[in-house]
Amino acid sequence: MIKQYRYAEISIDDIFHRTEEKTDVADAVAEILADVRKNGDEALRRYCERFDGAKLDVLEVSAEERAAAMEAVDPELIAILKEAAANIRAFHEKQKRTDFVITEKDGVVLGQKIIPLDRAGIYVPGGTACYPSTVLMDTIPAKIAGVREIIMTTPAKGGKINPVILVAAEIAGVDRIFKIGGAQAVGALAYGTESVPRVDKIVGPGNAFVAEAKKQVFGRVSIDMIAGPSEILILGDDTCDAEIVAADMLSQAEHDTMASAVLVTDSTRLADAVSAELERQIPLLPRAEIARASIDNCSKIILAESMTQAVDIANEIAPEHLEVCIDNPFAYLAQIRHAGSIFLGKHAPEALGDYFAGPNHTLPTSGTARFSSPLSVDDFIKKSSFTYYTQQALEQVGEKIVRFAEEEGLQAHGKSVSVRLEKGGTL
Amino acid sequence: MIKQYRYAEISIDDIFHRTEEKTDVADAVAEILADVRKNGDEALRRYCERFDGAKLDVLEVSAEERAAAMEAVDPELIAILKEAAANIRAFHEKQKRTDFVITEKDGVVLGQKIIPLDRAGIYVPGGTACYPSTVLMDTIPAKIAGVREIIMTTPAKGGKINPVILVAAEIAGVDRIFKIGGAQAVGALAYGTESVPRVDKIVGPGNAFVAEAKKQVFGRVSIDMIAGPSEILILGDDTCDAEIVAADMLSQAEHDTMASAVLVTDSTRLADAVSAELERQIPLLPRAEIARASIDNCSKIILAESMTQAVDIANEIAPEHLEVCIDNPFAYLAQIRHAGSIFLGKHAPEALGDYFAGPNHTLPTSGTARFSSPLSVDDFIKKSSFTYYTQQALEQVGEKIVRFAEEEGLQAHGKSVSVRLEKGGTL
Repeated sequence: MIKQYRYAEISIDDIFHRTEEKTDVADAVAEILADVRKNGDEALRRYCERFDGAKLDVLEVSAEERAAAMEAVDPELIAILKEAAANIRAFHEKQKRTDFVITEKDGVVLGQKIIPLDRAGIYVPGGTACYPSTVLMDTIPAKIAGVREIIMTTPAKGGKINPVILVAAEIAGVDRIFKIGGAQAVGALAYGTESVPRVDKIVGPGNAFVAEAKKQVFGRVSIDMIAGPSEILILGDDTCDAEIVAADMLSQAEHDTMASAVLVTDSTRLADAVSAELERQIPLLPRAEIARASIDNCSKIILAESMTQAVDIANEIAPEHLEVCIDNPFAYLAQIRHAGSIFLGKHAPEALGDYFAGPNHTLPTSGTARFSSPLSVDDFIKKSSFTYYTQQALEQVGEKIVRFAEEEGLQAHGKSVSVRLEKGGTL
Repeated sequence: MIKQYRYAEISIDDIFHRTEEKTDVADAVAEILADVRKNGDEALRRYCERFDGAKLDVLEVSAEERAAAMEAVDPELIAILKEAAANIRAFHEKQKRTDFVITEKDGVVLGQKIIPLDRAGIYVPGGTACYPSTVLMDTIPAKIAGVREIIMTTPAKGGKINPVILVAAEIAGVDRIFKIGGAQAVGALAYGTESVPRVDKIVGPGNAFVAEAKKQVFGRVSIDMIAGPSEILILGDDTCDAEIVAADMLSQAEHDTMASAVLVTDSTRLADAVSAELERQIPLLPRAEIARASIDNCSKIILAESMTQAVDIANEIAPEHLEVCIDNPFAYLAQIRHAGSIFLGKHAPEALGDYFAGPNHTLPTSGTARFSSPLSVDDFIKKSSFTYYTQQALEQVGEKIVRFAEEEGLQAHGKSVSVRLEKGGTL
């Protein structure tokens, strides 16, 4: 049974179940990374055999395997994946940015170049889960950014990858795919091996080993984020349908026993009805056991005094997913400051965004929406600034720079300017 | 004496002196952070007394102290700081971004909101260095982003802060200033204490303790970067003036014994002349000892076969600062893919950008320009995406989402859509 609290009874920090999880895989991961760095493909083959039961001469998925996957998958599903990809593309196209240049002062040109990364690595989990949506969500922004080469890695149990994953990779535009999973895949992407090229950024979810490996290679390469358990906060008022709110909470709860689904409402009627609906719906789910643990241990219903207070609570919590299940949702949009992805109105369940609508589903968890953003085209570009001055332009400001440098006690900085002023036009 | 290599003789990884520095301050820093988290202001006062010799009842700089600083500093210097701030503002204004909305499909509204951080923390080092330029460079982008409150901390030896730092803070628009330095300042900003408010992002350079503290609080708050030693790569051809190239290299070398200054040229004439000029100029510098160590141990001259090859080398190295000391520098701009800040032509020494021109001087070091950017307005905003569908719009695509969810084995995801389809207009 889900727990109910009045807002005054509970501290903001206790509303979501956000524990600072400790994992003890750091040493094991460090060992795997060092092994891959030193022994390259030989180490990768050893791990593929040990963890995935796959004896692989060639680690890369062949063009034939990729073509065969397109034949093996239901064309109706392929069409749905293509429509989802088109929606994701349309949304992320709007995130593209352009260079700028400033030429307002005589003899001065300043600007900023937007440059795509050379190479991105997409990690896709294997095992029981099969998430083609993640392939689309992680690859398409990189593609739109103009990344030159996109490398995907995923574990291949017995040497086989789920064909739906390969189809999603094809649709999204992945350049090369490798049959490698776990920390060893992260190591291969970070350091490069004989067959796997080194990348500049690694994105994608994974188990504790993958997350720890991303943490350890961070700095050498860029990473997207270390995601915590998934979360949803639903703002619902007295007009809400309890069956629907409960269904939305369970779509979060079925992910993981650590996932949190929180309803904040000013309606005791809705609170009680959702509580009852959860009890009714949980046993009907294939993943009932997971959902039960999430609802009982990590989820809550919070009674606010007003919907205005409910929005304040949402901002304090900065949830990964925020559903505004209210009839006039745009009235609340300006007040929402901290949330990864916002679902507005009664006809936009989170699942719409997980798969289909277009905005990214790789989102900041654990309150990091205070300062982090959904995965976007920005994650796959970087900027360089540039400065050009003519001799005359430098002469006009040179003495000021010398004075500034002296104030900071850096005479050689000043000298690099004054030597130019002294030499004048003779450079 | 600086070392010279032909490009064929040296590996790319050895051109800059980029060691993976190990510091053994992790335990000491963890202890300080835990202390600040637990004991708040009491711990901060203890550290201020121990490290800065300052017995402070009030940790915050008062309005009177800030006003007095404006009186104490030379008006000419204040005018220079204001002119630099105006240039920095003009450049960073161009980085501002706007929300977007997509309304092309019937009944569908998608969009992205740009939201400034609530609060940013700027760390400013104290001690012998006094860097008002860093105050301007770190604060102004936050201000332009629209950050609601900007908190600065800096150590105050004997309770006093250099008035030039306070003046720079005034000009840049810092809201509150605290007399706290070291790992304890980072802890105060990350966790908040009775008098220091918790921030969402911490930026600014610092010693090994500050860097390690930023690493340890990363995730709880955002940080700018962990900067490595500063670096410059200069592309120069046979038309270059050796005295000027050497002066530019020394402006980098005087920073730190670990700083690197590398010249890549196709001219043996320039290589030899710069080598001789370095020997002539080093003894003339107040910071000769530091510059000598940097030039002899960490700096190099690389002889390329052509300037085209020289640009390739620059891209491989991805330097923090790149000077293109060539007459037609814009001819090279499109070829440059990886560099933090690019200085074009013979009249744009790095010092121009360090202080005055407008682009930021907080830049990616150690090759991270492959995937990282100069500090910018982007560092002080985050994005939220939003999704609105009408009932009719959801009905049109609902079945596809259910099918997709089932493919991923997440039936509750599908159910959150199908329950809406079943209920139709009754929500």
